[in-house]
Amino acid sequence: MMSAQGRHFLHIPGPSPIPDRILRAIGMPIIDHRSAEFARLGKEVLEGCKTIFKTSRPVVIYPSSGTGAWEAAIVNTLSPGDTVLMAETGHFATLWKQIADRFGIKVDFIPGDWRRGADPAAIEARLAEDRGHAIKAVMVVHNETSTGSTSRIAAIRQAIDAAGHPALFMVDTISSLASVDYRHDEWGVDVTVSGSQKGLMLPPGLSFNAISEKAMAASKANTLPRSYWDWQEMVKINANGFFPYTPATNLLYGLKEAIAMLHEEGLDRVFARHQRLAAACRAAVAAWGLDVLCQNEAEHSPVLTAVLMPPSHDADAYRKITLEKYNISLGSGLGKVAGKVFRIGHLGECNELMLLGALSGVEMGLAAAGVPHRSGGVAAAMQHFEAADAGNAPVAAVA
Amino acid sequence: MMSAQGRHFLHIPGPSPIPDRILRAIGMPIIDHRSAEFARLGKEVLEGCKTIFKTSRPVVIYPSSGTGAWEAAIVNTLSPGDTVLMAETGHFATLWKQIADRFGIKVDFIPGDWRRGADPAAIEARLAEDRGHAIKAVMVVHNETSTGSTSRIAAIRQAIDAAGHPALFMVDTISSLASVDYRHDEWGVDVTVSGSQKGLMLPPGLSFNAISEKAMAASKANTLPRSYWDWQEMVKINANGFFPYTPATNLLYGLKEAIAMLHEEGLDRVFARHQRLAAACRAAVAAWGLDVLCQNEAEHSPVLTAVLMPPSHDADAYRKITLEKYNISLGSGLGKVAGKVFRIGHLGECNELMLLGALSGVEMGLAAAGVPHRSGGVAAAMQHFEAADAGNAPVAAVA
Amino acid sequence: MMSAQGRHFLHIPGPSPIPDRILRAIGMPIIDHRSAEFARLGKEVLEGCKTIFKTSRPVVIYPSSGTGAWEAAIVNTLSPGDTVLMAETGHFATLWKQIADRFGIKVDFIPGDWRRGADPAAIEARLAEDRGHAIKAVMVVHNETSTGSTSRIAAIRQAIDAAGHPALFMVDTISSLASVDYRHDEWGVDVTVSGSQKGLMLPPGLSFNAISEKAMAASKANTLPRSYWDWQEMVKINANGFFPYTPATNLLYGLKEAIAMLHEEGLDRVFARHQRLAAACRAAVAAWGLDVLCQNEAEHSPVLTAVLMPPSHDADAYRKITLEKYNISLGSGLGKVAGKVFRIGHLGECNELMLLGALSGVEMGLAAAGVPHRSGGVAAAMQHFEAADAGNAPVAAVA
Amino acid sequence: MMSAQGRHFLHIPGPSPIPDRILRAIGMPIIDHRSAEFARLGKEVLEGCKTIFKTSRPVVIYPSSGTGAWEAAIVNTLSPGDTVLMAETGHFATLWKQIADRFGIKVDFIPGDWRRGADPAAIEARLAEDRGHAIKAVMVVHNETSTGSTSRIAAIRQAIDAAGHPALFMVDTISSLASVDYRHDEWGVDVTVSGSQKGLMLPPGLSFNAISEKAMAASKANTLPRSYWDWQEMVKINANGFFPYTPATNLLYGLKEAIAMLHEEGLDRVFARHQRLAAACRAAVAAWGLDVLCQNEAEHSPVLTAVLMPPSHDADAYRKITLEKYNISLGSGLGKVAGKVFRIGHLGECNELMLLGALSGVEMGLAAAGVPHRSGGVAAAMQHFEAADAGNAPVAAVA
Repeated sequence: MMSAQGRHFLHIPGPSPIPDRILRAIGMPIIDHRSAEFARLGKEVLEGCKTIFKTSRPVVIYPSSGTGAWEAAIVNTLSPGDTVLMAETGHFATLWKQIADRFGIKVDFIPGDWRRGADPAAIEARLAEDRGHAIKAVMVVHNETSTGSTSRIAAIRQAIDAAGHPALFMVDTISSLASVDYRHDEWGVDVTVSGSQKGLMLPPGLSFNAISEKAMAASKANTLPRSYWDWQEMVKINANGFFPYTPATNLLYGLKEAIAMLHEEGLDRVFARHQRLAAACRAAVAAWGLDVLCQNEAEHSPVLTAVLMPPSHDADAYRKITLEKYNISLGSGLGKVAGKVFRIGHLGECNELMLLGALSGVEMGLAAAGVPHRSGGVAAAMQHFEAADAGNAPVAAVA
Repeated sequence: MMSAQGRHFLHIPGPSPIPDRILRAIGMPIIDHRSAEFARLGKEVLEGCKTIFKTSRPVVIYPSSGTGAWEAAIVNTLSPGDTVLMAETGHFATLWKQIADRFGIKVDFIPGDWRRGADPAAIEARLAEDRGHAIKAVMVVHNETSTGSTSRIAAIRQAIDAAGHPALFMVDTISSLASVDYRHDEWGVDVTVSGSQKGLMLPPGLSFNAISEKAMAASKANTLPRSYWDWQEMVKINANGFFPYTPATNLLYGLKEAIAMLHEEGLDRVFARHQRLAAACRAAVAAWGLDVLCQNEAEHSPVLTAVLMPPSHDADAYRKITLEKYNISLGSGLGKVAGKVFRIGHLGECNELMLLGALSGVEMGLAAAGVPHRSGGVAAAMQHFEAADAGNAPVAAVA
Repeated sequence: MMSAQGRHFLHIPGPSPIPDRILRAIGMPIIDHRSAEFARLGKEVLEGCKTIFKTSRPVVIYPSSGTGAWEAAIVNTLSPGDTVLMAETGHFATLWKQIADRFGIKVDFIPGDWRRGADPAAIEARLAEDRGHAIKAVMVVHNETSTGSTSRIAAIRQAIDAAGHPALFMVDTISSLASVDYRHDEWGVDVTVSGSQKGLMLPPGLSFNAISEKAMAASKANTLPRSYWDWQEMVKINANGFFPYTPATNLLYGLKEAIAMLHEEGLDRVFARHQRLAAACRAAVAAWGLDVLCQNEAEHSPVLTAVLMPPSHDADAYRKITLEKYNISLGSGLGKVAGKVFRIGHLGECNELMLLGALSGVEMGLAAAGVPHRSGGVAAAMQHFEAADAGNAPVAAVA
Repeated sequence: MMSAQGRHFLHIPGPSPIPDRILRAIGMPIIDHRSAEFARLGKEVLEGCKTIFKTSRPVVIYPSSGTGAWEAAIVNTLSPGDTVLMAETGHFATLWKQIADRFGIKVDFIPGDWRRGADPAAIEARLAEDRGHAIKAVMVVHNETSTGSTSRIAAIRQAIDAAGHPALFMVDTISSLASVDYRHDEWGVDVTVSGSQKGLMLPPGLSFNAISEKAMAASKANTLPRSYWDWQEMVKINANGFFPYTPATNLLYGLKEAIAMLHEEGLDRVFARHQRLAAACRAAVAAWGLDVLCQNEAEHSPVLTAVLMPPSHDADAYRKITLEKYNISLGSGLGKVAGKVFRIGHLGECNELMLLGALSGVEMGLAAAGVPHRSGGVAAAMQHFEAADAGNAPVAAVA
């Protein structure tokens, strides 16, 4: 048996590995959250967030998990009895829907097979049918972490526009932000939900709402009781770099560092890197003779790859063996695909050799667990990188 | 002018200084939150929390500020139109009341002058009048961080019992837990609210609800919509060491370390230390010829001391000068006492010399700001410590 | 071009990657080096070192590079004009010889081709010829970091014994200690030289001399002037856990942690892991159709593998390309083999996936640099691990 | 009894407390010490050192304790039989002399009473007598850490010049550099010896020699065997940012940060801060009715204050009680003054409130240990700071 010595390969689709720079930033002594020094930090991260969400409008930062930011989007803009349109892209879309359910929202949930993104045409059709504009919001998960499918947000915006529908457009970017190209303002998104522990490379504990003027107006008109998640007081107090309740200062130190790192690399290079890593990962899966869960070429996720196990093989048994023998964590199948898929994360702090080390573990694990496959996956991924380096690897764009 | 070199003296009443051991624990690489390794961590901190709250019942841990745990206590147990009894002990009691207001709760707010804790007799009287048992909950702040008064929770429990009233008893211990003696089970508290950044010596970002069987039953019956704060799913999934949404793993590393540190010192010694520091601080204030805001001897806070400025002197101007000259942060007056008091924190990681260094800064600052006072405060605090060491200093108990 | 994002793959043969646990230990606040608390630390690491060197005799710890411990071995035991026997195993043996030269020691330097360890038979022959016992010491490098050849220390001890020669036996284990099986007492070594930044997984800055009774006696008799490196005062003061001059306290924190980690894994498992990694690395080199510098099967290093470049290809140009494209550091050729070899480190904190990631970078780099080779090295290394896991991979022992 | 909770007050005269910024810098992952990235670091710290020593000539950096840099100064410039002139300022001057003794140097040791710095007049007299210029070097300790007396280096330079003597001038600044004004070039020093763990605020483990052209020439001519400490190869390889043997990379990270911090504050402000702290400390000692060991007003150390115990009171018993009761480390008396003095460090990361907290502990400890004294020391120190802030406190200059 192999030992657990050495660096663990954390290749779940988030929380992603936290860079040393960020861990060190988080470890700084805490300061007075009502001081001028804090206000400088607060303003810097609040402004910095706008550059990541690509918006000129406010981004609010909650001390909470991403789940909290889902709830915030709902309770600020919707009321019991309101109708919204959502698309069943996978487990996380389903969870977001459940939150809406709990708050008495009627969800028109376009069914899905968990193997592709949300269908812009289907959304357009539903909206076109809704002549009375009963639908208050369209709510879509950008990158469905449970399936590795990335919905085409720009296309969905176009669909909404084509239908001439006034619904708010709310997008969950928890696992895509800062890994996949995303444009809150340009794509006309009204509320962008996100979290800290994926592309931002931070520990979990911060979540975000980027808010359009239209969403802000909806919030002002909305009477659903709320306090912790309320945008109004948050935005008002944020203007001075402060927060209405004690902020998670140490995580804000990390956020400042993360934003700096992303801009040092350049967001476009960050996005290209994720595309390159994901394409190499899919090349490996193909070489193994296994199937990627996502079936739409244009919607493969740049941040994770979900792999279907051959029939009668349990993904969790496989993951357990791989963890014990090779010190690597892979993501489990969730919800409908529990036991049927495993997920390889390649997001945030990830580069070619980190991924190739991980793929080596996946491949050796397949052998150790007796999962039928062809070898050569790592070699195929290497070939992809070499071709990409030589400028020969076309990269699918998701937009 | 003095420089800002060297260690900053952070003597606000929270966030309290984070010990190096805890900062290092928080800086560990993140792990898979669905792994067996995580489950061990989760179980350890969930069990450990019970020893700090002194309860055998579940304690839930939220990734949020303490404000979130206030909201959680409300939305799990109360519904719009319900009546609760609260006591105006200061700014934070007022804020908690505002949250209740936002959720449509009718608050009977016993007025207070911000210079003492909640009055058990007044509570008993109100409850005795409430023959129809319309009051669903009594909600009290244990340590009012804005005033430095500590309410006598055991006495309030007796008051509720004396009135024979079935109301839930909910107590905010955000700034008292792990600094001031507290006993969730023994004192018959139904919901204890707390946070990470005070006596637990952690960064902000975790909050807590300790939940009695009666509160849990109320929660099951309660129909107020809720999701993020819902106890039911949290407690169910906590049973296996996991959380219903991504936990703030790095803060949980710190929580594990904090609980270990508290037990290494011994909770009773922790409480005695805070009493000793607070008494020394009050001795200094008395020597300066200034007044402590809290006027009830039995209710002086062990975690902070709020000091009244002489008339026509602005506390914030004084704090600014003291910060610039002596590199020390003091707490500002909040709400009704803004500008009229400053607050000296002596909680969490604090010992005799840290406090004496801080009191030196306070005393020199008074001189620098031209605030009328007598010198000799630091000397008085030293005398208190010497007397305490010799066993001659009676320490007021708050219970 | 690829970016430098993500974790750097540091695969030079030392300094080896420093585990997070050790980095955190080093980051603790410093303490009084004359306190009882320090004495406990001092005693613990001094005793702990004995378990790593496998000796019951003193191990002294210098605040210095390993080079200092080389010098210490010489100045404590030898005098100008003394003769010693050394073996030219590579660059580091040559450097150690140069230090002896500088101190006026006559070195009989058995020539070598840098492709194997020291020859026990040659040593026996020289010693047998030295009937007058002019040779005061036999000095050998255990693991020649410049070539990847490991000398057989037990066999050399037998050679000395077979020659019936009283020379001191001094061994440099700078790059082998805590990675390769080593037994100071059992193998009759008189002075073992070592350093912190290889198998001990620490930063550079500590070096070691393990000292036999015979060496200690030689030191007492030796008149060569010395102070910093002098064993006598060091050992005397070490008895109480202290040091004759200010110790590198923070590195001692790390040393304590390193010793704990080695025993948690178990030294035999540590050694087996290094053997397994090295064998996999050689399997990769063979698959590439390249040659390992070391030509003696019984002497392949478990800590690094030196790879010969094909004629007319520059190793440093290759390393530069590989670093820029794939964010991996490989070791350069040193001295006689500069430009002709590159070295792959697999020591200290290293496991299967870390090595496979590194080998991926080596293989892609060979392609990028236009170095003639066959692909399939990573695949061969994976096969080696799978065979080892199945119990089918015989591992060469070096002893 | 008081607990050991909370921050330890480390007030020995070095190692001084390490700032969090520096601890975090040291905790960065290690890099290849032969890489271009390292060369940039190497050049930056080598150049940066020049700004701290105030020299345009090379400063070499050893991975060693300061003791090593003492030895380096000797073995590079002197040979057995050479005569040097030293002054017995205290324990550390005596230790440096012992090293010279061990290397066969004849030391003319001007006797001293450990209560003042080296006497420029006495040095001038000896040099004037030495018409044959037998004296090869004048060796003086700038700040005698054992006594708290600071020798006047500029005046000694004038004395050497007045005597028209060609001797090298070698100065130990281990405990003064970066705390006390020092000018290698301007004051015509030939070799400046220093260490990392005092004014540079680093852990122990780095030491320094700043080298004049004249000293470098002496080194070239000197035949005393040496290797580790040899300047020639060091300076040659330093030119490219590298080192002749593995450097203590993590400490160099810290050195880079320390130099940055010193320049952010400004060296003159750093020096003034130390003067201010030391004067306040002496004010406290005077108020206690105790005597400072140093008897020369012009030579009081800005980095530590040695305090004489009243007759028949043991300083170490006092220090033990103070440590146990108040969690503060004070320096012990060394050598001739063992048990007779205790030393208060106020160097490196130290500010007003840190010192006042420490002085509180000293004062309460005096009471607890039954040492005859007057109270009021802390108050006197506070008054000094207030006067200094008001511009009324004349500060003695040492030059």
